Amino acid sequence: MPVLADISVLATCRSSGGQADIHPIPDAALVWQDDTIQWVGPETELPSEYVGEERQSAVGRLVIPGLVDCHTHLAFGGWRADEFALRIEGADYLDIARAGGGIASTMRHTRAASEDDLAERAAGHLVEMRKLGVTTVEAKSGYGLTVEDELKTLRVYRRLAETQPTRIVPTLLGAHIVPPEFKADRAAYIRLLADEIIPQVAEKGLARFCDVFVEDTAFSPDEARTIFAAGTEHGLRPKLHADQLSDTDGAALAAEVGAASADHLEYISDEGIAAMAEAGVVAVSLPLATLYLNVRPLPARALIEAGVAVAVATDFNPGSAPSYHLPLAMMLACTMQRMTPAEVLKGATVIASQAVGMNDTVGSLEAGKRADFVVIDAPDVNHWLYHFRPNACVRTVIGGETVWSA
Amino acid sequence: MPVLADISVLATCRSSGGQADIHPIPDAALVWQDDTIQWVGPETELPSEYVGEERQSAVGRLVIPGLVDCHTHLAFGGWRADEFALRIEGADYLDIARAGGGIASTMRHTRAASEDDLAERAAGHLVEMRKLGVTTVEAKSGYGLTVEDELKTLRVYRRLAETQPTRIVPTLLGAHIVPPEFKADRAAYIRLLADEIIPQVAEKGLARFCDVFVEDTAFSPDEARTIFAAGTEHGLRPKLHADQLSDTDGAALAAEVGAASADHLEYISDEGIAAMAEAGVVAVSLPLATLYLNVRPLPARALIEAGVAVAVATDFNPGSAPSYHLPLAMMLACTMQRMTPAEVLKGATVIASQAVGMNDTVGSLEAGKRADFVVIDAPDVNHWLYHFRPNACVRTVIGGETVWSA
Repeated sequence: MPVLADISVLATCRSSGGQADIHPIPDAALVWQDDTIQWVGPETELPSEYVGEERQSAVGRLVIPGLVDCHTHLAFGGWRADEFALRIEGADYLDIARAGGGIASTMRHTRAASEDDLAERAAGHLVEMRKLGVTTVEAKSGYGLTVEDELKTLRVYRRLAETQPTRIVPTLLGAHIVPPEFKADRAAYIRLLADEIIPQVAEKGLARFCDVFVEDTAFSPDEARTIFAAGTEHGLRPKLHADQLSDTDGAALAAEVGAASADHLEYISDEGIAAMAEAGVVAVSLPLATLYLNVRPLPARALIEAGVAVAVATDFNPGSAPSYHLPLAMMLACTMQRMTPAEVLKGATVIASQAVGMNDTVGSLEAGKRADFVVIDAPDVNHWLYHFRPNACVRTVIGGETVWSA
Repeated sequence: MPVLADISVLATCRSSGGQADIHPIPDAALVWQDDTIQWVGPETELPSEYVGEERQSAVGRLVIPGLVDCHTHLAFGGWRADEFALRIEGADYLDIARAGGGIASTMRHTRAASEDDLAERAAGHLVEMRKLGVTTVEAKSGYGLTVEDELKTLRVYRRLAETQPTRIVPTLLGAHIVPPEFKADRAAYIRLLADEIIPQVAEKGLARFCDVFVEDTAFSPDEARTIFAAGTEHGLRPKLHADQLSDTDGAALAAEVGAASADHLEYISDEGIAAMAEAGVVAVSLPLATLYLNVRPLPARALIEAGVAVAVATDFNPGSAPSYHLPLAMMLACTMQRMTPAEVLKGATVIASQAVGMNDTVGSLEAGKRADFVVIDAPDVNHWLYHFRPNACVRTVIGGETVWSA
């Protein structure tokens, strides 16, 4: 039963209290057995039954829960580096999309890729993410957009869940865009989703959530309602890409359908904020996408003041957020969204775990939860997110097993 | 005489042409002897005299000149992580400064630190910077603000230049702020600078440049003129912190005094841009400070269109830019300042070397220049700066010696 001691601060990130309340314990110790946390508290109060157990030292460093990246598009074919330069030169993201670039370009590469290739690439990303302290990853399909290619992507996630230590939460994003072959008959694609893709995914147990991109170039709120109804009927809880590039009442729709989260939200309205607060929908902020698309930041202060819990995630994808660096997204949430380091840490741990329905087991350091934790080379949370370094994570533990050590 | 071959693209970054012209050579080879580049060109054109020499492989990766970080405050005591959280909670940067925080706080810690301690900490930062591909670093004093403490900091830089492989360009920033003990008599501090600090620094050969922070809370343009006159008299070329938080005609002043560079420039006026273009002053953009202070980005497009060369640097310091991650600053220059990856690369190599008067020897890959180069794990420049990773640099070479290898 290992005891981790000499911890400068342990941020428990218990869910009680407000966004900024990470319930820090100075000079802490952490005890676990197998994959489960047994005890957390001040080292001076370590119960006598643990005193003789194997002692490890955190050398005066910060300990936090394993980070939860609650919004990624983990498995995809190809990259889109040249679109990045084109956008800087003035090309519009939606113009690129209309010209067959953007998501449709990644769709072609993903369809062409084998299941093995997709799994190998995504596994490589998971390795790098674990080095950064990321222990749970939500992973969306949405670059297949046929029955077979959506199933293929979700089988990749099942394989990763079985072969990688990272905890994987799979989400069906069949409604990412209307694929080009259905441009003339959008309704037919929505029928394909509702009648074939969603039922087959649910039957095979390949996803927990059903996500819809609600935007002018993707799906309307009414189309989303149809898709969510099919998802809910098959046990897949709603999630939304909402109000990213314009206000499409996505936040209100998230509240209406009981979504676990509404994500992006740069253009959310005051009415949308009130609706999310009332319904208890988590807001997932994606500051890397805000930065790469050069749009205005999500109004984090207004959301937090209204009582909405704000998660922070990467949106890792080959177009609008081509980085899996969650600590960078967290630093950007501080600088661009005016969230304090404590608020951001809670947003990337327990609140993120709520957004993916995992908060019974991960996201905070409490007795009975999984022993997923990270040692950060910093004296406290403020210092970690202020002094940005390539990687300040020196040890990552998942289910009691060390999966990375600097 | 080593030959580096199998290079996907070698960006020579020759100074000719515009900001975007990095003079790339596909499928390139690079030959050096001792510390000097002998030949650069397409591998198929490798001269026969080099064919039998020791061959190294870049494994199809990108090769660029060693990065030049042309604006840092490398040696300092203490950190200011808690001010970071305070600013996010709404405290104003200038209010914190007026309350004795900010630069004055770091000044107290730097005065209290020993020369050995400052050198050891700064050396540690240089090690991390070399891992990121940074081979030349401009380093400013400015946290001492007494004769002895400014000399102490500049002696630290001399020691680092002698003991570290990184090339160090020392700058006297005695005019960072008016130190608290001179608040009642600003003129006395300016006399101390002009009559004692500048002459002693110059006599000992401890700096190449004389920098002044021109801002409401620091020095006025007229005060700066007095300080620059003393610096120029003693052979120290002017540099300015200008127009960062408000338009103080700093850019025009830079042109007037023949500065090597004007740095920050978020609030530069159209007249300031025209004056810098006319005088050939390099603009040093510092996007990390822009991000951390949450101010508007420097108008890079207007500067480039006016013919001003725009460098990109970190501004590494414990307050407004607490990161030495130059590739992150470069990515931010793309996303926030709308510079293309090629423009940014030229800005962090040959243009940065111009800003610190080192372009005769470093900043580009050409026969006769120092063999300072970096191997980046990316197929091209667009991909490197688009797919942000903790560190994509896999090898750093200074003067022909490998100083870092992943």
